[in-house]
Amino acid sequence: MNNTLHTINASRLSERIHALAEIGKIEETGVNRLALSKKYKEGMDLVRKWMDEAGLQTRYDNFGNLIGRIEGKNENAPAVMLGSHIDSQPYGGRFDGTIGVLGGLEAVQTMMEQGIDPDVPVEVMSFCDEEGHRFGVGLFGSRGILGKLEQGELERTDAEGVTRRQALIEFGADPDKLEESEYNPDDLKAYVEMHIEQGPNLEAADVPVGIVSGIAGPRWLTVELTGDSGHAGTVPMGKRRDPLVGASYIIAAFNSLVQSEKDAPSVGTVGDLEVFPGGRSIIPERVTFTIDLRDSDQERRNTYEEALMNIIERTASEHGLEYTIHDDGGTTPKDASPEIMDIMKSESSEMGIEPPVLMSGAFHDASNMAEACDMGMIFVRCRDGISHNPAEYSTDADIAVGTELLYRTMLRLVKE
Amino acid sequence: MNNTLHTINASRLSERIHALAEIGKIEETGVNRLALSKKYKEGMDLVRKWMDEAGLQTRYDNFGNLIGRIEGKNENAPAVMLGSHIDSQPYGGRFDGTIGVLGGLEAVQTMMEQGIDPDVPVEVMSFCDEEGHRFGVGLFGSRGILGKLEQGELERTDAEGVTRRQALIEFGADPDKLEESEYNPDDLKAYVEMHIEQGPNLEAADVPVGIVSGIAGPRWLTVELTGDSGHAGTVPMGKRRDPLVGASYIIAAFNSLVQSEKDAPSVGTVGDLEVFPGGRSIIPERVTFTIDLRDSDQERRNTYEEALMNIIERTASEHGLEYTIHDDGGTTPKDASPEIMDIMKSESSEMGIEPPVLMSGAFHDASNMAEACDMGMIFVRCRDGISHNPAEYSTDADIAVGTELLYRTMLRLVKE
Repeated sequence: MNNTLHTINASRLSERIHALAEIGKIEETGVNRLALSKKYKEGMDLVRKWMDEAGLQTRYDNFGNLIGRIEGKNENAPAVMLGSHIDSQPYGGRFDGTIGVLGGLEAVQTMMEQGIDPDVPVEVMSFCDEEGHRFGVGLFGSRGILGKLEQGELERTDAEGVTRRQALIEFGADPDKLEESEYNPDDLKAYVEMHIEQGPNLEAADVPVGIVSGIAGPRWLTVELTGDSGHAGTVPMGKRRDPLVGASYIIAAFNSLVQSEKDAPSVGTVGDLEVFPGGRSIIPERVTFTIDLRDSDQERRNTYEEALMNIIERTASEHGLEYTIHDDGGTTPKDASPEIMDIMKSESSEMGIEPPVLMSGAFHDASNMAEACDMGMIFVRCRDGISHNPAEYSTDADIAVGTELLYRTMLRLVKE
Repeated sequence: MNNTLHTINASRLSERIHALAEIGKIEETGVNRLALSKKYKEGMDLVRKWMDEAGLQTRYDNFGNLIGRIEGKNENAPAVMLGSHIDSQPYGGRFDGTIGVLGGLEAVQTMMEQGIDPDVPVEVMSFCDEEGHRFGVGLFGSRGILGKLEQGELERTDAEGVTRRQALIEFGADPDKLEESEYNPDDLKAYVEMHIEQGPNLEAADVPVGIVSGIAGPRWLTVELTGDSGHAGTVPMGKRRDPLVGASYIIAAFNSLVQSEKDAPSVGTVGDLEVFPGGRSIIPERVTFTIDLRDSDQERRNTYEEALMNIIERTASEHGLEYTIHDDGGTTPKDASPEIMDIMKSESSEMGIEPPVLMSGAFHDASNMAEACDMGMIFVRCRDGISHNPAEYSTDADIAVGTELLYRTMLRLVKE
């Protein structure tokens, strides 16, 4: 593979990525561009300017999304959409989301410069509030255009008490006219998103890009174990009902459980645990911890969830604990379109690369879009698998390879 | 056993306990009487008034302790001291400490009313700040009189930024003249403390009181495990270095370890655990937890501590974690005086009861006093083993039995 063989303009793309990173910049390499904030608007305006300059028809919708569109020969055909998001976590990086939006623009701009007229319309989408940090739930723009918002979402508040409704109005959107911005799935042919991997697999395999087979569906639970508090010095071991000991057995067993099928992409995480009352000389009375269980295979995920329930029940019984399990929801795994994956594979081959096929453990707007149309994703290698952090890093060269593959994939999809 | 056979005045004792519980009262049955607070002073003044009325010579010392004394026939003989403390935890109960001070006063007052002249002086001691909540370290008064305070203790601050030095001055003590309030161990013959058990053993054995064989020495450590944070969806299980999983294995193994010798009184507790950064979808980067290990047998405690070190090292190595172990100190176990235990056993027998001999897992001022003179402790049954809580409860009848035993023990000790 030779970068000079790229059709896309890698240096223009790189310049844009780094120019956008100046907006909301924190530390040397970080970005804080919370959804619908002033910096978000500034960033979106800059992307829109680039879209305008490239000759796309641009508009903001009422969800705070930015859409750049070119018509196809067949104006009524379902569109091919390339996109991602440019909002960030508060202590985020420069590449998460951004490369999918600017890569999508680069792909469309290249096509226009090459004088290629697509058969179907093509849109570049910059979704609003993928991250979900500010109002506590994310994937807002992609859920919005598909009519999947939940009741009360506009009244959710940020840390300052500003509602999403107010934030949308400040951004310039009209939250009373959301329906006008919804898409009919029949108008969508495919959605393709390029994103940094946010994991270590591509780096470990020493390859610049990967083809995503599907997006794991997370299952979220909160487990609360209750026992008896008491003085750490005075309650004999045989008389204790210590929920932290119980939690320890459950966490260790859960960790083994999700690894029981070798080479399966299942992951299980206890990311948070709280001890009440919490003191050196006090036997804990209550321990609360989160469960995050993900798999590309819904059936296997269900099997693990059931096994976890049995582990919790058995452990609670052995340690004399009471327990409650709170269902915090989750989503079903989403498969990438086999046709799009095949296109990516053959185009990769043309490019002289062999991207591995891998699952996305993280959520993306593509998870929602997969319910409306064919979905494909390209992952770009990121250093040490780090994201949501200023240390997040992908090389210009790797992003260029991903964008070239995105461009070539798009060219195949825009043919009727 | 028949309560009417008590020599001590059980109803006077009960009235005092419940009158004192009104000072700093919280909820229906709780007490908040932090050391050196206004409520503490009010409580101490009331106890002093009762001591004065009973005919004891009373004084406050410069550690914030209250001492009531009667001389013996031999004024220069080492004194027998009965005592405990009346300061409480912020959400404490009515009996912890209090019954030892008021029980001690009841014993001495009874002796005086019986016209018994002790051979040696007798003191009733109400120690300052046993609990240690306000300034973070306790057993202040008993360490103080034995010259065992540590550098900088007077400059420790409470939650409002008040130093212990200021609090002592507000109480009326002179922190520049602490030496004047120190005791020479040669002036102490014995220290006897009655205290609620703060554990479930007496209740389980269905007996009102117990004889304490010794006070377990706690060993305190803080363990910090560090791994790699990452996205819960994207880092494959095989590539994780999850410190919460490691901590879980350690906590479970530690819990088994301290139970490896059947019927031994060893106890081990992880009372607090913190996860950083702590989020549902974030693999923890760092987990910090406390270790509290107690035993009456120093050698066995050392063996367990060494075994725990091995568990931590092995687990960290298996899970690719870094670890640090912070030494938070501890104390050596303290034995009760065999002679005082023998006296208690024979006096119990006279009373028609057979108190079990048990270890104190909790700390008491008696731990310090054991270094200066013979030490003995009587435990009084407490409901459900609960203390440091408004639900703390001992019956008047059980406290009366304990006080009668304290009285009889004292009578034997005051003979030369």
